[in-house]
Amino acid sequence: MSQPLNITDQEILRYHLGGKIGLDLTKKLADKRSLSIAYTPGVARPCLIIKNDPDSVYKYTSRGNLVAVVTDGSAVLGLGDIGPKASIPVMEGKAVLFKSFAGIDAWPVPLENCRKYGNEGSTDIGKLVDVAASLAGMYGGINLEDIAAPACFEVEERLQRIVDCPVFHDDQWGTAIITLAALKNYALLTGKNMEELNIVINGAGAAGIRIAETLRSEGAGTLLLLDSHGVINKRRHDLNLYKKAFAVNTTKTDLADALKGADVFIGVSCPGLVTKDMVNSMAECPAIFAMANPEPEITPQEASKAMGKRPYIMATGRSDYPNQINNALGFPYIFRGALDTKARRISMSMKKAASEALARLAQMEAPDYLKDAYPGEKLSFGFDYIIPKPFDRRLLVEVSYAVADAACQEGAGSVTDLSNYRLYLEALAYTSEEDISFPFIIERFCQFGDQHTICVGRKPDGTKESFLCDPQFMDSFINDESIPGRQINLYLKKGKLVKVSA
Amino acid sequence: MSQPLNITDQEILRYHLGGKIGLDLTKKLADKRSLSIAYTPGVARPCLIIKNDPDSVYKYTSRGNLVAVVTDGSAVLGLGDIGPKASIPVMEGKAVLFKSFAGIDAWPVPLENCRKYGNEGSTDIGKLVDVAASLAGMYGGINLEDIAAPACFEVEERLQRIVDCPVFHDDQWGTAIITLAALKNYALLTGKNMEELNIVINGAGAAGIRIAETLRSEGAGTLLLLDSHGVINKRRHDLNLYKKAFAVNTTKTDLADALKGADVFIGVSCPGLVTKDMVNSMAECPAIFAMANPEPEITPQEASKAMGKRPYIMATGRSDYPNQINNALGFPYIFRGALDTKARRISMSMKKAASEALARLAQMEAPDYLKDAYPGEKLSFGFDYIIPKPFDRRLLVEVSYAVADAACQEGAGSVTDLSNYRLYLEALAYTSEEDISFPFIIERFCQFGDQHTICVGRKPDGTKESFLCDPQFMDSFINDESIPGRQINLYLKKGKLVKVSA
Repeated sequence: MSQPLNITDQEILRYHLGGKIGLDLTKKLADKRSLSIAYTPGVARPCLIIKNDPDSVYKYTSRGNLVAVVTDGSAVLGLGDIGPKASIPVMEGKAVLFKSFAGIDAWPVPLENCRKYGNEGSTDIGKLVDVAASLAGMYGGINLEDIAAPACFEVEERLQRIVDCPVFHDDQWGTAIITLAALKNYALLTGKNMEELNIVINGAGAAGIRIAETLRSEGAGTLLLLDSHGVINKRRHDLNLYKKAFAVNTTKTDLADALKGADVFIGVSCPGLVTKDMVNSMAECPAIFAMANPEPEITPQEASKAMGKRPYIMATGRSDYPNQINNALGFPYIFRGALDTKARRISMSMKKAASEALARLAQMEAPDYLKDAYPGEKLSFGFDYIIPKPFDRRLLVEVSYAVADAACQEGAGSVTDLSNYRLYLEALAYTSEEDISFPFIIERFCQFGDQHTICVGRKPDGTKESFLCDPQFMDSFINDESIPGRQINLYLKKGKLVKVSA
Repeated sequence: MSQPLNITDQEILRYHLGGKIGLDLTKKLADKRSLSIAYTPGVARPCLIIKNDPDSVYKYTSRGNLVAVVTDGSAVLGLGDIGPKASIPVMEGKAVLFKSFAGIDAWPVPLENCRKYGNEGSTDIGKLVDVAASLAGMYGGINLEDIAAPACFEVEERLQRIVDCPVFHDDQWGTAIITLAALKNYALLTGKNMEELNIVINGAGAAGIRIAETLRSEGAGTLLLLDSHGVINKRRHDLNLYKKAFAVNTTKTDLADALKGADVFIGVSCPGLVTKDMVNSMAECPAIFAMANPEPEITPQEASKAMGKRPYIMATGRSDYPNQINNALGFPYIFRGALDTKARRISMSMKKAASEALARLAQMEAPDYLKDAYPGEKLSFGFDYIIPKPFDRRLLVEVSYAVADAACQEGAGSVTDLSNYRLYLEALAYTSEEDISFPFIIERFCQFGDQHTICVGRKPDGTKESFLCDPQFMDSFINDESIPGRQINLYLKKGKLVKVSA
């Protein structure tokens, strides 16, 4: 277990003072000339091109890298229905994660007046879908966030039918995707088969329902889903459409019954619901994924007392225990892959591709910078490391690529050539935001999509690297045939190549 | 007249490639610790504070510096109804101006499905107002943009009644505010009285109506407004509510009639409508403000031919002639002043304060950097310089201050102490975005509002300067009593003070 971070209220509030986000200008406005290009009269050119060819909105606007983080504030973190305004720090935080982890320009969209009674009551599904659809034209993707179940299911499904960009409710799918990855590695480490696992999911809200759906689609063995009234079985008459899909014939009624002999406990419910006795009643070498936040269904300390020397794998939602099931491992890269292929939806196969990539990454040796970032933790595949860490930069390359590849395979988007996509992702993953210059040997320039030019080459010590070129400046060097093969200096600004010199 | 800029299509399209805007993170996400602060569990703190005290949304989110640029794409530049998606390059361009000129984080909000027939037909006022009101919670102000008249009038008025932040349709008020400034200086230079001016306004759309309203409120003499059917007089039965307010008793019916003996022509209509004969029929030393874009109602060359050696003052909407009536002189600073006082509306007195500040600024000697930026132009008060230039950094200080002061005087917002506001604006106006360090003698630190700490002092050569402090780092130096009065090195990052060293 890592050390607690001892963060004070003062430190938190100073961080959030004045908010966490703003507008970044990717092009300069320096003088009369750039004013005439950025605004009238020059701006009429891209406008007319888009008017005549709507798909070029991806080429001549920021849409291709923008994600809206849409909420009505009805189920924010563990805080419940705090409303859209009080949810803004979370939505800005989500934008920070999108940008920091995947270079995506996400923007908070907290919506007022989308409840049954103005700003009160449950989500007005029709209104929320309608408003979100109206503003979708600016965005390459919509991340729904912190919308209460069961309204969130219908909101996602209806909105996706209307808009031409992917819609993804992270509270539904995020946890499901990471959980599947963890479960794959649990199966691998214990030698059990996914098809034979006896799985109990406690909690039938946004996350619980989609975890069940994802695991079923993966061919998992027996699934028992429980809500606050107990096991969801066919005798119950109080079930909504989404719960009904997982109702089974069973005599089991409560969590204690359900866990007897189970291989896997997946908790997306409330603190403290699982006792030591329940854990003791599970099958040999069980998985205990207690993901209630911030307090798990059973603490790792309690689980350890219950299990003694018997082997088990524990995961939680917290960063201060091993195996954190953290949504930040998924959504930034899932959207990265979807945006880069201009996918119109995020299909089950794209989601499962993300899980598979996450599972595989945990099996690989962690790089040194990552070990340094987590002192005292052993980052090699095993019972205490079944899932990658959020600051692992390989996530951006591996997960995004897997998602984009799945999108291409099923024709989900209009981009189908991924031949330089890995170079593009590597350039994005390993570039500093600081202004830097350094010696480099350029080998070649290549393209990804219709916007990105990538400079490929090696450092004097032979390390291969790639960099993105700033489109405003690349004409000055991209056609200079004397450059390739020679050692020259590269100048990067905001992570993009803006100048080369001998 | 300045040189034409000779901008190629290729240069324009390269500038707009991939769009012009993105997300800027004002706080770093570097490690596990900042992840726990920016997102769960730390983020719950500011959320709960806002939940309990809704006004603190300005303190703990980015709202206080955010402006939504809202359009339905129904009247974009001179391009007409090109729809919301094709309008995005303009909306992004507007955001670029907001940020570059006034440090405001503006965000494009092009809205689909806000027309009578889905995405076709005239503006659905109710729908547009409804959607804009739903997303207003994130923004400290709403800039309506490129919405066709007459719907735009009702949209602005209805939306302003619903939301708790200022709503300002730049196509209505922007031109009116700059025109009033130019007219004040025309009156000053020609010794005429505003109250005695004989004014003809050709064009009764968004700009024309609000120019008429603003000039009437300023006490201008006779106002004749014309639309495409001629003079708006009391005998006409085809007038909407907004035109009717300016119907007068007159026998004049067309533009040629109207201009006979007029002191002032204000054109917000179509190219070429004004002939040399019409100009010749105007009063002595007339004002010819031919602002149709990009081709004026009469070109400066034609006007010059008509007037010969007789004095007159000409203004257009173009940057390649003297006296450009450019909205960019207004909206960035009007919103700056409104945001900084947390004003809930932008009143007529705030608008007129902006005009007065603009007029005064043109009367002052231009600084050297500005003269350098406009080679070959004589930037001193006179017939060819009645209005400031867009790259004049004094605009940010003088216009914003005047607007904020007017807001305070009428109690439009909750911020009422402007004692350090000028220091704040100067810090904002003269700070480079580049990372820099330099020697400085700090005199003191002071506060503006509840977010901004300003470092005040002088360079070794005695020049007074002020800088904004980054809230994340200022604890390390703000309370160090050994600092004031001593020469030390300042380190600025993104225009904010992050470090000092001996």
